[in-house]
Amino acid sequence: MINVVLFGSGNIASFLAKQFINSEVINLIQVYNRNLSNINYLKNQTDIVDDINEINKKADLYILALKDNIISKFSKQLFLPNRLVVHTSGNTSIDKLKSNSDKGVLYPLQSISKYNEVVNKNFPICIEAENEKDLLLLKKVALEITGNYAILNSNKREQLHLAAVFVNNFVNYLYSIGNDICKSKNISFKLLKPLIDETAEKIKNNLPKDMQTGPAVRNDSYTIAKQEKLLHGIQKEIYTLLTQAIQDKNE
Amino acid sequence: MINVVLFGSGNIASFLAKQFINSEVINLIQVYNRNLSNINYLKNQTDIVDDINEINKKADLYILALKDNIISKFSKQLFLPNRLVVHTSGNTSIDKLKSNSDKGVLYPLQSISKYNEVVNKNFPICIEAENEKDLLLLKKVALEITGNYAILNSNKREQLHLAAVFVNNFVNYLYSIGNDICKSKNISFKLLKPLIDETAEKIKNNLPKDMQTGPAVRNDSYTIAKQEKLLHGIQKEIYTLLTQAIQDKNE
Repeated sequence: MINVVLFGSGNIASFLAKQFINSEVINLIQVYNRNLSNINYLKNQTDIVDDINEINKKADLYILALKDNIISKFSKQLFLPNRLVVHTSGNTSIDKLKSNSDKGVLYPLQSISKYNEVVNKNFPICIEAENEKDLLLLKKVALEITGNYAILNSNKREQLHLAAVFVNNFVNYLYSIGNDICKSKNISFKLLKPLIDETAEKIKNNLPKDMQTGPAVRNDSYTIAKQEKLLHGIQKEIYTLLTQAIQDKNE
Repeated sequence: MINVVLFGSGNIASFLAKQFINSEVINLIQVYNRNLSNINYLKNQTDIVDDINEINKKADLYILALKDNIISKFSKQLFLPNRLVVHTSGNTSIDKLKSNSDKGVLYPLQSISKYNEVVNKNFPICIEAENEKDLLLLKKVALEITGNYAILNSNKREQLHLAAVFVNNFVNYLYSIGNDICKSKNISFKLLKPLIDETAEKIKNNLPKDMQTGPAVRNDSYTIAKQEKLLHGIQKEIYTLLTQAIQDKNE
């Protein structure tokens, strides 16, 4: 068994806690959170603490599932020589860990929320460590969580996280524009869902640029002008900029 | 049986021809195309013609699966009194049909290509007609093609098509940015596919705005500044504009 202490109570911490409790490979021996009430639901499954001095010193792995901007400051307090401390942030270098310990990263590349079950469970866990032994441990943990891992250094992980902002956060925002347009004209947004699925499906076996369709890529200036007239404000700015970008790319 | 004459050889025409040939409800009696060689592959299945004077006058339905900008001019040549002529364009009003005939619209709301099989086949066909009898006929045809229809007037269909540009064309372009970022750093784009799926999946039972995550919506100015520094040119412009838009929406 791999003994783990988990820090935090956010989306990733909650997801990991659940996975670990159901695991026969990983033993969640303790969960720390500054505010005990947020992890109280775990009290029958594991040891819960809110005092950093009570951290169990004998775990194989310490996972800081904390906000990016507190990782450095928080980790400074950890004196765990020869133990492995990791953070779970996509956008934070391994160097930001300031614990007296071995260091690593365990970044789940997925949109995870406390309130919604993840549908696509076989997503990659991006791992990084300072030595082979620790990397091997993180591999085992990743395989147990999702069955899928990728070894990436901090520089690559930062780029991957940036790409994720485009394909996840920004894509979701475009969905919300689609929803707003439909709502304003009393059209059911559900009508667009097979198209949304197809758009995501098509790039599984094709390059996105080869799948590009629509008025922009076919330089259909009549439709572009007509659609720009239907839009206002920031929606119009987005339409114009993305149309331009698609046209530039295909020149 | 519903007797159909189909016009065109593009993506939608090819898709419809295939559906109709396999149908026991619809009888594809003729396909017209200006250039006969593009529809030659259908010659063993149906009558193919390239002369408008040879159009069969006895069909129940004439489907113009033609480019938006030639629908008016082409339809003017059709003298088919009391027969139903429809176009398949999302962005074109029913009024653009200038045939001497009844008029309607049959717009498949899906990303359809000759070269890729549609995965999500149960997509809506948006229909419009001038009278109940014609609408009933279009319903039957839509149900036979995909099992799913929506009755929308030209104004609503135009708005739906605009929403589709955001959730399909623009989303695909954001996928291509994700791919470009990965490629430039020698990272496998495949890593992002479970996240892409999850993003599309989550909005099935939730409003997109409630699913918004990422640095923009949580006003994480540290990460935003860091990511902007990694970008250049139009990718940076898109990052900044979409970040601003997400922040404006959530204020």
